[in-house]
Amino acid sequence: MSRTFNVALIGSADTITETLVELLDERNFPIDQLYLLALGEALGQSLAFRGRQLRFRALDNFDFAQVQLAFVADELPQSCRTRALAAGCSLIDMTAGLPLDQAPCVVPELTTVAPGESAPFLLSTPTPSAVACALVMAALSPQLKVRRVQLTAMLSVSTLGREGVQELARQTAELLNARPLEPRLVDRQLAFNVLARTGEADEQGHTLLEQRLTSELRQLLQLPELPISVTCALAPVFFGDSLSLSLQCDEEVGVAVVQRLLEAAPGLELVEVGDYPTAVGDAVGQDQVYVGRVRAGVCDLRQLNLWIVSDNVRKGTALNALQIAELLIKHYL
Amino acid sequence: MSRTFNVALIGSADTITETLVELLDERNFPIDQLYLLALGEALGQSLAFRGRQLRFRALDNFDFAQVQLAFVADELPQSCRTRALAAGCSLIDMTAGLPLDQAPCVVPELTTVAPGESAPFLLSTPTPSAVACALVMAALSPQLKVRRVQLTAMLSVSTLGREGVQELARQTAELLNARPLEPRLVDRQLAFNVLARTGEADEQGHTLLEQRLTSELRQLLQLPELPISVTCALAPVFFGDSLSLSLQCDEEVGVAVVQRLLEAAPGLELVEVGDYPTAVGDAVGQDQVYVGRVRAGVCDLRQLNLWIVSDNVRKGTALNALQIAELLIKHYL
Repeated sequence: MSRTFNVALIGSADTITETLVELLDERNFPIDQLYLLALGEALGQSLAFRGRQLRFRALDNFDFAQVQLAFVADELPQSCRTRALAAGCSLIDMTAGLPLDQAPCVVPELTTVAPGESAPFLLSTPTPSAVACALVMAALSPQLKVRRVQLTAMLSVSTLGREGVQELARQTAELLNARPLEPRLVDRQLAFNVLARTGEADEQGHTLLEQRLTSELRQLLQLPELPISVTCALAPVFFGDSLSLSLQCDEEVGVAVVQRLLEAAPGLELVEVGDYPTAVGDAVGQDQVYVGRVRAGVCDLRQLNLWIVSDNVRKGTALNALQIAELLIKHYL
Repeated sequence: MSRTFNVALIGSADTITETLVELLDERNFPIDQLYLLALGEALGQSLAFRGRQLRFRALDNFDFAQVQLAFVADELPQSCRTRALAAGCSLIDMTAGLPLDQAPCVVPELTTVAPGESAPFLLSTPTPSAVACALVMAALSPQLKVRRVQLTAMLSVSTLGREGVQELARQTAELLNARPLEPRLVDRQLAFNVLARTGEADEQGHTLLEQRLTSELRQLLQLPELPISVTCALAPVFFGDSLSLSLQCDEEVGVAVVQRLLEAAPGLELVEVGDYPTAVGDAVGQDQVYVGRVRAGVCDLRQLNLWIVSDNVRKGTALNALQIAELLIKHYL
């Protein structure tokens, strides 16, 4: 008989936790007990797992010695984190909120080794765009020496969680019915509009997400000095991120070679030449990251331009977190 | 008494021609007679001008000697163009369809001189994103030596004309009412989705629009060798383009200097530090191009990143064409 694990999921009923719980079932993760744990508001919320409604219970007095693994979808007090690790429970953080030197990020297609000595581990799943870009850039790294990365990411409103999805739906309906719009959640019209950023900017003008994405990509590619420039905008799309990625290389880019590398890479799906992928038409609900529009610069053959789409909730977050868990149970737990 | 002009508008009743006719009135363009001329389908369509409905009449036998100036919003047969110019009628092409060496593009904020010796002129108004980028880059050119330009443009569906606007509205309503979607006009879902390009791509993967924009920017900035890389995507936005522009410079970029230059530049409106402009909230219906998110690269101080929004129909096309006409009547006609 194969081993099973007890697993905790810390957070609330949201798009990501819902998807994670679906995936645990779909991928036959060897779970014995699943504990849903919440801080405050989410107490009493529930998620469906294997045909049963599970309720979120209080995190406060939870004995982490009962579980080998916990997925963390909400900001966890430092004391809880310490308590979980002390009890031998590995943590997979999905909040992009922990320092990367303490909780390194992992994309399991790119490594078979977890950063750290032995369980318990404290690991991060990267932000969704970093997962997608890392998969693409790692596929190309044997052939392309990249000097500079330029990314404009058009993120979907599910980046803001279920509330973002609800707000886009609400605003769209109001506008189509010619009712006056009173934006909630963000301070301006989301529907039929593109927002230049996803949160507050620092003094230099960068958002937390843009800085995080930069750090994550550098860590994932093991290129701590790589110049990366990122703009994360918010598009009126419910699910699925669209990325316009440009890589400035040392030498002329062979488009045919790039296509072969992308075709062979794990986690990626290259669309046919002449076609292009879209978030809704290709990526949403899928376990792959889709790539198309592979082309050199209009007037610079050392530049490679790509269009990448990915399901930010599924492939970008929940699935990657689960793949980290699969890696841990396979080799370490 | 000041001079007046007879003017022709060749095209059909669409978002751009409608806006142009409004602007002719709004800006008190010294018109005596306005002739609406059409090829085929648009015959019998009409536009409101100064409180009257004017009808599109046949272009075929129109005597161009009656007008000093014609705005061209539809592809014009070469024979008509020759006939118009031979009759002394200057043409302002708004189709982005003529070779730039025959019909140079003009952004009137950037020049007081029309390319060409004397009337009749054959000039182009650039594609909307080129107008916006040229205004920004020209403002910065005294101080910044730009080595490389990277643009990801999120264009609104009005890029496809009125049909694009109608299709986004139709698709959105179908989806919100949970009815099955049958895309028209383009071959996939526009609503709540981002399309990676606006038309067919050539063998190298570039669309006509991307190549055109590159050539126009080089011509407008008088930098024929400038490496420019462009991705034009289509966002589910009715009006207004959002541009993520990156300029790679020779030296470190002084953000404060850049802000001062942008503030002083004609045609531009710099939003307050910490704020950002959006297509719908700022640009639509306005005569200015809005700029924000002025910042150096996250990890490269020789890079300048900007977010630019502009009304593609008004400022990007109709107003710029009209400003070209104003330049011509002021100095040449």
